[in-house]
Amino acid sequence: MMKYCFGVDLGGTTVKMGLFDLAGNVLDKWEIVTRKEENGMHILPDIAASIEDKIQEKKISKEEIKGVGIGVPGPVDNVGVVYKAANLGWGVFSVENVMSDILHLPIKAGNDANVAALGEMWKGGGQGHRNLVAVTLGTGVGGGIIIDGKILTGANGAGGEIGHIHVEDNETKLCGCGNTGCLEQYSSATGIVYIANTILDKTTKETVLRGKELSAKAVFDAVKEQDEVACEIAEIFGEYLGKALAAVAGVVNPEIFVIGGGVSKAGPILLDYIKKYYTKAVFHGSREAIFALATLGNDAGIFGAARLVLE
Amino acid sequence: MMKYCFGVDLGGTTVKMGLFDLAGNVLDKWEIVTRKEENGMHILPDIAASIEDKIQEKKISKEEIKGVGIGVPGPVDNVGVVYKAANLGWGVFSVENVMSDILHLPIKAGNDANVAALGEMWKGGGQGHRNLVAVTLGTGVGGGIIIDGKILTGANGAGGEIGHIHVEDNETKLCGCGNTGCLEQYSSATGIVYIANTILDKTTKETVLRGKELSAKAVFDAVKEQDEVACEIAEIFGEYLGKALAAVAGVVNPEIFVIGGGVSKAGPILLDYIKKYYTKAVFHGSREAIFALATLGNDAGIFGAARLVLE
Repeated sequence: MMKYCFGVDLGGTTVKMGLFDLAGNVLDKWEIVTRKEENGMHILPDIAASIEDKIQEKKISKEEIKGVGIGVPGPVDNVGVVYKAANLGWGVFSVENVMSDILHLPIKAGNDANVAALGEMWKGGGQGHRNLVAVTLGTGVGGGIIIDGKILTGANGAGGEIGHIHVEDNETKLCGCGNTGCLEQYSSATGIVYIANTILDKTTKETVLRGKELSAKAVFDAVKEQDEVACEIAEIFGEYLGKALAAVAGVVNPEIFVIGGGVSKAGPILLDYIKKYYTKAVFHGSREAIFALATLGNDAGIFGAARLVLE
Repeated sequence: MMKYCFGVDLGGTTVKMGLFDLAGNVLDKWEIVTRKEENGMHILPDIAASIEDKIQEKKISKEEIKGVGIGVPGPVDNVGVVYKAANLGWGVFSVENVMSDILHLPIKAGNDANVAALGEMWKGGGQGHRNLVAVTLGTGVGGGIIIDGKILTGANGAGGEIGHIHVEDNETKLCGCGNTGCLEQYSSATGIVYIANTILDKTTKETVLRGKELSAKAVFDAVKEQDEVACEIAEIFGEYLGKALAAVAGVVNPEIFVIGGGVSKAGPILLDYIKKYYTKAVFHGSREAIFALATLGNDAGIFGAARLVLE
């Protein structure tokens, strides 16, 4: 009888892994190092070996395992082919085929941001909803879109790449993707610091931010103290992100936005700044969409990966 | 044995109807008037009566009919409930339940723009693709999104409402939806005339457009004669639409955009203006998306409606 599944969240530094029962309870959780040398050719065998060890340790038979889900930091299509994962050194190949050849278990692979969105829907801030947009505000801005309970993969795995929606014509600085004026340049942790520096250069107003080491946390801490300049920065952040999410809603009409990533640690006040501009710009059919904070933190990836094999 | 299905495209003035075989060949095509009096309560019975007549005329047995698909001019969720269709006088009810009670056949309902998109995928400009965005440039800007061969309905039937993506902050004129600065205000037939009037008011340049009755057709006819002012108008149109479609691609990563509606009669030159700005703004993962013209014209709705019941 099927009793277990594994969820794997493959990152550039570590691989997070979880053993789950089929109801989504975490039975065990551990990490291994991501060995990126030799174009990342050791990564999948390392993961497989670690799962084999866990199977032995827990005295599980392979017949009891429904499968292994893997979130990969790169575009993955809906048959499990990754299209380059630059920071692993990977080119184009089927993660599902390669991994099932090694591990002899059913494998499902997805893009890490999409998989994390699935995790938040299953056991996190998006529980009870089947049409969801997850937004991860970290170093960059990641997105994952779930339609009718399923990941929106897109034609070649670039579905939900909302961090690279063009939002600013008057930008000269390049985004990591090669374009200019991407949402990620303003609404990520890095982006908030960028806005803060621009504002601090222009204003002579008193602010607790001046002279401080700038970070998204420092800005939102100052917002909570009603620092005028920090609030101005938060408005700019909220306007870029709120309008972009209104455009996203115009496309997919979600029930809920789940906002996660390091920046979301600022808490509900962050959502207020986003909603203010979202509500103004969005089509009325999506005006009632809920904004919620992600709750699974770094575990969203293993939850979503496990969920992949339960569909 | 199942041999036939019906496709119904319910519009504000007429109801277009088609009888199809299951391979998607049109066997017959006709129209009836849309009777909107008494809050549109006659509309579904009229359609049912017309289908019953056709069944008799063609000596078809109901056992041979796979079902009836209906495209409705309003938001429809994925179980066939319409959420108000203002220009029919309709409130909220299940089109599928009401119609199957009258007609005793399987019924599927969808939003008309989404259904037309499905038609273009099945038998029109999007054949061979399963991830498609259809854009209808008519009086307004309609959108329909197909993901993995299925309509993206959204939480309450507002999926694909791309005409109301906010694209211009400096707009004071209201859009029909109550917001300002919606894509539809610039990229519809009406929108192109609006841009043209604005430009003509500002410029003193010679142009064949001056003194003419302005229309999207007149503008693109002048573009083909390389009229400088007309080209300027087309650039503005292309910039709004190209950037908005780049945002759409950032969300759903389609294989193809299929551009239809009256404005699309301008032909391939229209696509050139859109692609120019799309390519600049879009995330690289969607840069290779194809732009094609719709080919089914006013028949897209009956094709898509028929396709609804074949899923």
